[in-house]
Amino acid sequence: MLTKSVIKYIQSLQQKKYRDVHHAFVAEGPKVVLDLIASSFSNVKEVYAIESWLEEINPSLLNSIRDKLYLVKSHELEKISQYTTPNKVVGIFSKFKSDNQISLKNSSSLLLDSIQDPGNLGTIIRTADWFGIKNIICTPDTADMYNSKVVQSTMASLANVNIIYDDLLKWIHAPKTIPVISAVLGGDPLSSFTDKGHFMLVIGNESGGIRSEIIQASDKKLTIPVFGNAESLNAAVATGIFLHYLKS
Amino acid sequence: MLTKSVIKYIQSLQQKKYRDVHHAFVAEGPKVVLDLIASSFSNVKEVYAIESWLEEINPSLLNSIRDKLYLVKSHELEKISQYTTPNKVVGIFSKFKSDNQISLKNSSSLLLDSIQDPGNLGTIIRTADWFGIKNIICTPDTADMYNSKVVQSTMASLANVNIIYDDLLKWIHAPKTIPVISAVLGGDPLSSFTDKGHFMLVIGNESGGIRSEIIQASDKKLTIPVFGNAESLNAAVATGIFLHYLKS
Repeated sequence: MLTKSVIKYIQSLQQKKYRDVHHAFVAEGPKVVLDLIASSFSNVKEVYAIESWLEEINPSLLNSIRDKLYLVKSHELEKISQYTTPNKVVGIFSKFKSDNQISLKNSSSLLLDSIQDPGNLGTIIRTADWFGIKNIICTPDTADMYNSKVVQSTMASLANVNIIYDDLLKWIHAPKTIPVISAVLGGDPLSSFTDKGHFMLVIGNESGGIRSEIIQASDKKLTIPVFGNAESLNAAVATGIFLHYLKS
Repeated sequence: MLTKSVIKYIQSLQQKKYRDVHHAFVAEGPKVVLDLIASSFSNVKEVYAIESWLEEINPSLLNSIRDKLYLVKSHELEKISQYTTPNKVVGIFSKFKSDNQISLKNSSSLLLDSIQDPGNLGTIIRTADWFGIKNIICTPDTADMYNSKVVQSTMASLANVNIIYDDLLKWIHAPKTIPVISAVLGGDPLSSFTDKGHFMLVIGNESGGIRSEIIQASDKKLTIPVFGNAESLNAAVATGIFLHYLKS
């Protein structure tokens, strides 16, 4: 049975300040919880599930988390779920270790300037993971990577990418030989860039784009060709198109 | 002042069956309402706005809708808004005329197989508009294009693209010489396809992909190259990458 203090603790993790205090976050639903357990089971703190979820998890994975698993009734799951119709399982995980001591010299990385929508951020992280990007640097005003909507939309890619929050200019100005590419409207055509080595790609805010001092500090300002009438592309879609072009 | 029956009418438009009965839909917020008025002001039925919105609209546009404009108080806007914090203006628009008598022979088109998430559908429509796609055909079980979340995420591209709901196989089997391309996992690399003419691109359901009979009826099954660990890409991101590749 769930105690009141456990319910209160889990509910508190919907807020960033408590996620920071407890160094923990919540994931919900069979797919994302299973994927997070499989990819980083040392981060599992507690898993609250209704009995029917046990049929979906393979026995060895189940065994690895047995001492952290708590079976609950549906009405109990409702109390700790953020959804009106909770989906079988709620997992509490330790935050991942962010590595600030990275070098961006020998790999490609993604720099996010003030991405506000948690769904967009999650989709960008998942897209970065697909294209093998190992490091994402976000401005401090970017949405929190442990916001539950981010966690849901990353589809467990959160465990595969090193994400840090920092001043982008610090990283842009660090000594390196790889190009800094800003995704902008009204820049050079994406196809004009043919240097297929490592890169730092900057993606900007959904409505305001990349702030001017970062654009100015970039080596290239590139634009996806437009054939129709839309004024802009969604930030995650633009990220996908740039990463596919730059990596292929 | 808003009467009870007007409030009830606008609230009812949150449901598809009433949107169908009244042949109307709702858009909210300064940006999307202004863009929809500008791109298709013959479709404007009524606009409910608080006074401060008038400062944001140019005088000639304002003049064109003057007899359809109703000034309301903030507490009235709350009653017809779907948001807890309504954003200055709610517009009621006639549905666009869908053209079923199209030919897909001389243009590129997008076929959507059961896209469930309204945000994804809206982002896909916006992306299609960016790449100059004129026709989108959706399976009847795809989200409704007039769902308010779709309307918000299309950013007014809804007015620029002809969208119909129909059996995809009917269109795939119609006589034509352009290739039908299915976006799948585990197919041929996207880069193996070099025929840069018109195409019909099929994008599948977020979790189940494209149904097998449609994949079988396709000329090409193509896959975006993967460099990392993510199992799949978001449907709208995949649409953007395919359209950019096929149109460039």
